[in-house]
Amino acid sequence: MSLDTTARLLITCPDKPGIVAAVTNFLFSHGANINALDQHSTDPEGGTFFMRLEFQTPHLDVTSEALKDAFARTVAERFGMDWRMNHAGKPKRMAVLVSRHEHCLLELLWRFARGELHCEVTDVISNHPVHREQVESFGVPYHYVPVQKDGKDEAEARIVEILDGRVDLVVLARYMQILSPAFVDRFAGRIINIHHSFLPAFVGADPYRQAYEKGVKIIGATAHYVTADLDQGPIIEQDVTRVTHRQNVTDLRDLGRDLERQVLARAVRWHLEDRVIVHGNKTVVF
Amino acid sequence: MSLDTTARLLITCPDKPGIVAAVTNFLFSHGANINALDQHSTDPEGGTFFMRLEFQTPHLDVTSEALKDAFARTVAERFGMDWRMNHAGKPKRMAVLVSRHEHCLLELLWRFARGELHCEVTDVISNHPVHREQVESFGVPYHYVPVQKDGKDEAEARIVEILDGRVDLVVLARYMQILSPAFVDRFAGRIINIHHSFLPAFVGADPYRQAYEKGVKIIGATAHYVTADLDQGPIIEQDVTRVTHRQNVTDLRDLGRDLERQVLARAVRWHLEDRVIVHGNKTVVF
Amino acid sequence: MSLDTTARLLITCPDKPGIVAAVTNFLFSHGANINALDQHSTDPEGGTFFMRLEFQTPHLDVTSEALKDAFARTVAERFGMDWRMNHAGKPKRMAVLVSRHEHCLLELLWRFARGELHCEVTDVISNHPVHREQVESFGVPYHYVPVQKDGKDEAEARIVEILDGRVDLVVLARYMQILSPAFVDRFAGRIINIHHSFLPAFVGADPYRQAYEKGVKIIGATAHYVTADLDQGPIIEQDVTRVTHRQNVTDLRDLGRDLERQVLARAVRWHLEDRVIVHGNKTVVF
Amino acid sequence: MSLDTTARLLITCPDKPGIVAAVTNFLFSHGANINALDQHSTDPEGGTFFMRLEFQTPHLDVTSEALKDAFARTVAERFGMDWRMNHAGKPKRMAVLVSRHEHCLLELLWRFARGELHCEVTDVISNHPVHREQVESFGVPYHYVPVQKDGKDEAEARIVEILDGRVDLVVLARYMQILSPAFVDRFAGRIINIHHSFLPAFVGADPYRQAYEKGVKIIGATAHYVTADLDQGPIIEQDVTRVTHRQNVTDLRDLGRDLERQVLARAVRWHLEDRVIVHGNKTVVF
Repeated sequence: MSLDTTARLLITCPDKPGIVAAVTNFLFSHGANINALDQHSTDPEGGTFFMRLEFQTPHLDVTSEALKDAFARTVAERFGMDWRMNHAGKPKRMAVLVSRHEHCLLELLWRFARGELHCEVTDVISNHPVHREQVESFGVPYHYVPVQKDGKDEAEARIVEILDGRVDLVVLARYMQILSPAFVDRFAGRIINIHHSFLPAFVGADPYRQAYEKGVKIIGATAHYVTADLDQGPIIEQDVTRVTHRQNVTDLRDLGRDLERQVLARAVRWHLEDRVIVHGNKTVVF
Repeated sequence: MSLDTTARLLITCPDKPGIVAAVTNFLFSHGANINALDQHSTDPEGGTFFMRLEFQTPHLDVTSEALKDAFARTVAERFGMDWRMNHAGKPKRMAVLVSRHEHCLLELLWRFARGELHCEVTDVISNHPVHREQVESFGVPYHYVPVQKDGKDEAEARIVEILDGRVDLVVLARYMQILSPAFVDRFAGRIINIHHSFLPAFVGADPYRQAYEKGVKIIGATAHYVTADLDQGPIIEQDVTRVTHRQNVTDLRDLGRDLERQVLARAVRWHLEDRVIVHGNKTVVF
Repeated sequence: MSLDTTARLLITCPDKPGIVAAVTNFLFSHGANINALDQHSTDPEGGTFFMRLEFQTPHLDVTSEALKDAFARTVAERFGMDWRMNHAGKPKRMAVLVSRHEHCLLELLWRFARGELHCEVTDVISNHPVHREQVESFGVPYHYVPVQKDGKDEAEARIVEILDGRVDLVVLARYMQILSPAFVDRFAGRIINIHHSFLPAFVGADPYRQAYEKGVKIIGATAHYVTADLDQGPIIEQDVTRVTHRQNVTDLRDLGRDLERQVLARAVRWHLEDRVIVHGNKTVVF
Repeated sequence: MSLDTTARLLITCPDKPGIVAAVTNFLFSHGANINALDQHSTDPEGGTFFMRLEFQTPHLDVTSEALKDAFARTVAERFGMDWRMNHAGKPKRMAVLVSRHEHCLLELLWRFARGELHCEVTDVISNHPVHREQVESFGVPYHYVPVQKDGKDEAEARIVEILDGRVDLVVLARYMQILSPAFVDRFAGRIINIHHSFLPAFVGADPYRQAYEKGVKIIGATAHYVTADLDQGPIIEQDVTRVTHRQNVTDLRDLGRDLERQVLARAVRWHLEDRVIVHGNKTVVF
């Protein structure tokens, strides 16, 4: 299967009988060949229904625009669907914001360079000037946008100027500045953050120190969509590793870095592959 | 959802366009409400297609026998399907064979007693007489079938006599006698064994000693269907745990016991819930 | 090595040079053969030092009482040690408190019956009358101590009456009553609780529901010593398992039960083997 | 603690009473401050004893050479010790051999660049010419040593020429050429390989395909010292990840890459920190 001939359909709607039949029937009748189908219902009686389909387009009997129109009219409306249909072949445009710690940034760039992340990296923006050379070696533009004391608004305005209309996804790869509600709103549902703890434990600053002082036996990392509430957005992925009394705060940071890299890379990949549906403050990951 | 109104349909067939539409359309047209659907294809071009559906039966417009007939005629034949349709409400009948180590047996009995395993435990059979009191306290018949030197055939004949026509599943919960090909054949696809290693590593006797002598840093347990080839049947579930140089063979056995209990309980549960499809020497677990 | 000839020495003191040499020299000079030694220092400069030694006693040149006296005089005092020396052969006396959910209780009783936990189970106490038969089948006395509305003090007084002077360890195996500070104080450092979440996430009631509503991708269980602050005592052990959007609250409870059983059993075992040193609000687990 | 003032002592000897006392007493009497001590005995009666100590050197009363001499004479000889004493401050010299797949190589270079691996990377050698630019960007010399059909000996001779006398550690970071016994012998105990399976399962070529065809539910990676027997040397570290029927061979390779990177990086780090003692065909990792 080539990505170029693959399309993806994501659906959220009230659950009731006949949805799967209607959707698959519709696609089949137009010559689409379904090669992946996942569905989930929170409750068959009055719950919410989610579905992700991947289908092959070479034998479609209509253009993809016509297919969307027909789907809207004949299926989506009937079931009250919130839906989107994407061509997998078109790479999403991703920007990365980063502060001093570059491990998550490099993990993404490196996977991008290897072809593991199907996207276009449009920009890297940092409030530290130190990563320019590394970033540019990947052929990616690097923007140094310092955040002065009392200059937060100005910095954000500059970031918006760089990104506006150019990106489908903004990744906060250990970007340590808190973004304004206006910024979050502008890129709603399109900002992924990596938090260096097993949320909801240890929100806020220096979670590895908090974990050390609490004496937990397992530490974690969490990738989530960003909402106006700090560290509270819908969780996409988490992972953990064991620690003991032997690890000090520095050791936890070392171990945690490896977790952060893996967890963020998985969340970004799933987002790029249209695997994530946000539902309230939670996610469905197909 | 009550189990009493739940049915399950499992399908294996050559992949080609239209299967999902045909199946879901068929069920919908007869008043079935699909509440779970999983599918997998090894390759959309010429591969094998697998599907598991769970649906609610209260509004069926035909009897379940008529539904099966209609499905056979109008869908299954067209796509060359290997399929089965079960009522979830009818508990499967399970027998357990065990030798001296009773931890897996007790895990199953205890989950059965708590209602975590939807089945009827028809019999426990052992070549050791020591578990009678414990087993009978669960209200389950206990059969002591000793295996004499050169009396293997006789013992197996006695086991067949006890089980024949009475069981849907035979669980080898650390039963340390090798079963004859004839026995395996008689209960083909219905025998689950727990092997105390991460297969295919450490087949055969005393795998914890083998693991110790190899110096592995992780040990495992494997639940699999039994075929004529010892320890080679389709794997249903595996799990592992970390070990270090500090653990001796006895420690590995202690740690492994906990793995075996968990892995076997999961595999048995999935089998009872019609989640496992065998395909060649592998399984699809929905 | 027989437990009967094994002794254990646990030490906490300010770190400074010469501790290990002094302790091992002392034991060696009295004919003790060290067969396990673990140590940890929070900071060699001004930190706290912890050590656990296991040694064999057959060739001691003095009685164990005399050994303790000599250790106190010649080593412990010099380094300002907080220490204890136990004979491994003497089983600790353990009581279990439980409410309606019996899975943790049964896990402990079953491991006790198999010899996996070296202890004497003196009593099981419950505010529900339902577990008597199961508990008594292990040869363990069962006490039904109901907690009436406004009768909390009375119930606790009855529990104290049963336990006082008879137990080295009180395990709260899903005992859902909050204990008074006076009770906690009376058994300080000797009460282990299992909390059904990955602490510090989801303190308080119904943590599986909290986890479900938060949409975490991993759930956990935590065994900890009980202090006056609810769910805040020193953590002994934690473990986790992956979940997805497919699991509802009931599924999380099912999965969590297996975690709780394992985590509590490990914590209790380590306590019984003198592997845990409490230091402030944290533990060192050797 | 600075690495510059840290020394490490590793010991293997027959177990008998008094070893810990003798060693710690010796170090204490010369002004060394022990800040980490791990020990292990396969059996206190007639087993083998292993110990790793880390100590601070600022207050030593002799030179480190004199300390070694004294230790040899007064302690090591008495107990028949196989031992080594290293200064942690002196970086080990590491070379990396790689074929086409560069993920393990880059993981090591990247950690080296971040200061996570305390070593000097002397050379990268490959039978493919493609990684030069990336390697040289880390300031590390890159040698392209092609392996012609029938030119294996020649290639190996060239590699020996590059490495001889210059390296303390040779890492095979997915180097897909089999090395001759003579080569292995020359660098005995100093070659670490990453094998892309959970050994001893799936030795030899294309282990991900083997895993796929076997239908395992967990895949792994193994870092081990290289001996003359292919894929059979002492295991240093292993890790695993879950897979299902949904992953094809390509997916397993993708998932496995992340495992390989982590497992190899940990094994190399532990070797560089003098944490690994080889004992027969197994390792003790402190």
